[in-house]
Amino acid sequence: MMSGEMKIGLIGFGNIGTGVVKYLDQLRQLHAARLPRPMVLSRIVDKDTTTRRDAPYDFGILSNDLDALYGDPEIEVVIELVGGEEPARSFIERALMSGKHVVTANKAVMAAYGPELLVLADEQGVGLLFEASVAGGIPIIRALQQGLCASELTSVQGILNGTCNYILTRMGEEGLEFDVVLADAQKLGYAEPDPTYDIQGYDTAHKTAILASLAFGMDIRYKDVHVEGIEHIQPADLRYAKELGFAVKLLGIAKRKHPEQAVEVRVHPTLVPLTSPLGQVGGVYNSLLVDGYPIGPTMYYGQGAGPDATSSAVISDLMALASDIHGFNRWRDSRLRADIHHKQTKPMEYLQTRYYLRFAMHDQAGVMDLIRQILNDQNVSIDSMIQNTGARENDDSTSITIITHQAQEADIQSAIERVDLNQASHDKAFMLRFVE
Amino acid sequence: MMSGEMKIGLIGFGNIGTGVVKYLDQLRQLHAARLPRPMVLSRIVDKDTTTRRDAPYDFGILSNDLDALYGDPEIEVVIELVGGEEPARSFIERALMSGKHVVTANKAVMAAYGPELLVLADEQGVGLLFEASVAGGIPIIRALQQGLCASELTSVQGILNGTCNYILTRMGEEGLEFDVVLADAQKLGYAEPDPTYDIQGYDTAHKTAILASLAFGMDIRYKDVHVEGIEHIQPADLRYAKELGFAVKLLGIAKRKHPEQAVEVRVHPTLVPLTSPLGQVGGVYNSLLVDGYPIGPTMYYGQGAGPDATSSAVISDLMALASDIHGFNRWRDSRLRADIHHKQTKPMEYLQTRYYLRFAMHDQAGVMDLIRQILNDQNVSIDSMIQNTGARENDDSTSITIITHQAQEADIQSAIERVDLNQASHDKAFMLRFVE
Repeated sequence: MMSGEMKIGLIGFGNIGTGVVKYLDQLRQLHAARLPRPMVLSRIVDKDTTTRRDAPYDFGILSNDLDALYGDPEIEVVIELVGGEEPARSFIERALMSGKHVVTANKAVMAAYGPELLVLADEQGVGLLFEASVAGGIPIIRALQQGLCASELTSVQGILNGTCNYILTRMGEEGLEFDVVLADAQKLGYAEPDPTYDIQGYDTAHKTAILASLAFGMDIRYKDVHVEGIEHIQPADLRYAKELGFAVKLLGIAKRKHPEQAVEVRVHPTLVPLTSPLGQVGGVYNSLLVDGYPIGPTMYYGQGAGPDATSSAVISDLMALASDIHGFNRWRDSRLRADIHHKQTKPMEYLQTRYYLRFAMHDQAGVMDLIRQILNDQNVSIDSMIQNTGARENDDSTSITIITHQAQEADIQSAIERVDLNQASHDKAFMLRFVE
Repeated sequence: MMSGEMKIGLIGFGNIGTGVVKYLDQLRQLHAARLPRPMVLSRIVDKDTTTRRDAPYDFGILSNDLDALYGDPEIEVVIELVGGEEPARSFIERALMSGKHVVTANKAVMAAYGPELLVLADEQGVGLLFEASVAGGIPIIRALQQGLCASELTSVQGILNGTCNYILTRMGEEGLEFDVVLADAQKLGYAEPDPTYDIQGYDTAHKTAILASLAFGMDIRYKDVHVEGIEHIQPADLRYAKELGFAVKLLGIAKRKHPEQAVEVRVHPTLVPLTSPLGQVGGVYNSLLVDGYPIGPTMYYGQGAGPDATSSAVISDLMALASDIHGFNRWRDSRLRADIHHKQTKPMEYLQTRYYLRFAMHDQAGVMDLIRQILNDQNVSIDSMIQNTGARENDDSTSITIITHQAQEADIQSAIERVDLNQASHDKAFMLRFVE
């Protein structure tokens, strides 16, 4: 173990970086009492060296000189809080190559390049810790790596994006249109000016890839994840769902019923029972349900984002390093590399679940029979069917909502395609899956 | 790091021990893939060496010879699954003195002697791991030690005893008397033949002492915990609570609003909002709510007991040791010893909360006024008051149920004492506290 102070360099002095600097200072005594040696932030690198941040720091340690940071032999740990794939990936790589531990909150890099970077860290004999990359203040990375490591996990399902959950919660409670709530969320700072990354499910997909990799000890990347967003959901969908006893949540789902089977890795809006643990998570909170053998179902809940929860996760990784938990890295690494030869993700066509279908048809005789016939042809069995006409004025459309029994995704997709191509179709069909 | 196999000795081959042996065998490949070296169980010690257990093991490794286990230089880790204070404490002590890591599920020993044993482990340069001692399959010990270590924790509140939660859930849902549900729970194996340890809150108190020690880095023992059980709760209490929007849960509560303040450590049945995360936990599950700064509220849920969840926790500790996470022990230890000089628990008299009071009075004129007067004299302000007469036939008693505004525990206790001493009192008063 190294002794004396653990010197830290920070790359990226934005919102999260400011939080880390603030809490490292404010909770210094608490951290010191829990550690065998003190942590000291000795360099900060950011393009912007002039804006005053709302945290106490020695102005002399802030520069835009990355080389000085990598070249400083006293720095043992580099925190990467730049975000996005590049140049963050190369910053992490260079830090590892310089023999420094890395702590990152970067889900995009870990979901795209995690396995290579973990191997590199291992080769360099340093740690690459990323507790803050998924679900902010919920210590789910450690739970998967350590607390649940003795069990064969079968599923990880989670509400991982606070923006989407906030929008869906308000749409459901207030009956508002998606665009209205999104605009409000942007005004309140719960959604980005460009909300694509969140609402189209990409953020959740990054996190799901990381969770799936850890849960199943497999090399699962962002590109392996099937992704659908929440942008086509209408208040009527949430109303029907509620009448049926369900909430609609954007879930990241990673499942493997048996170690010999392929893994499902998917992100899409999902009907979840209102009375279930995930169905009750409202607003900007995150929640994860992890199941496995023999441990059984476990659940985790907390703030999924923001400088407070994320800083707490970043600093917990620093404290693991200061406590010399270096076996950590080897473990993480061996888990990610184990079973790599088994890597096999299940194509969506093979998915079997219950479906919610909404067809927008011209309001004319026989459309219900038409749909019933097409679903029947595709081996999709109908549980219930509701027709709603004249929801909008001056509109000749009618909305037909169907809940199916267990069906095969390929059959559902064919049925949707056939209805969409029919002359009686007024607008593209919309589909939601039920949680299993 | 030691290389080669990690040899393990097990003391206590009962239900949990059998689970550990079973899953070490059944999930051998999974564990090996996640570890730098294999784990091998090489000795089992139990008084009973003849009964066949439902797990595959080499009969030759089972004996009643403790000395052979301590004296075996190849054994690196001892699992203690004997339970109870003695002789389990001395078994752990001897294993540590023999230079072996210890993994235990023993809440009684950790709550009574944890700090001394952790110091001893530290002196011996070995680990003492106890993930399985609290909340079975929920990795809450690691969450407190690692995931949440960067935050100043303010409270840990949990449903920690499945037997009590099962009884309260069924009493609430089916309107059954305590004794009836307890008898049923005993028949179903959810309650012990002697249920005292569970229903009087002692089990929850042991776990709460361990959680409080870790959350606040203080030396808090079992004897520091104020304990009340669930044995005096009536179906009517649960009915009233439900009408008010509350469930009744036996909670273990550890709170410190500010680092400079004294810690509240208490176990008692508590009114919890039905819509809150803890209010929704039914049956034999455990759940914990941990709050802190800056992390905010986080929640954990899972199976709290039984061989499956507990074995998973025990084996996760073995895997931490096989992964050479030896900094673990130092950290745990420094957290338990940090701030010991601050140790100060708050006397119950100073507690301030809302109260639910049920008085059994003789059915005569003026009893409501009498109670109102006594509460008024004691500075207890009434929020609502209900009188229910003739709940039981051939009974001259009347039940008066009161919800108070925020009040001081000392005032409530005085008021209860005064009512109980009054001639108009038919039976002892009953009190529940609201969650804050």
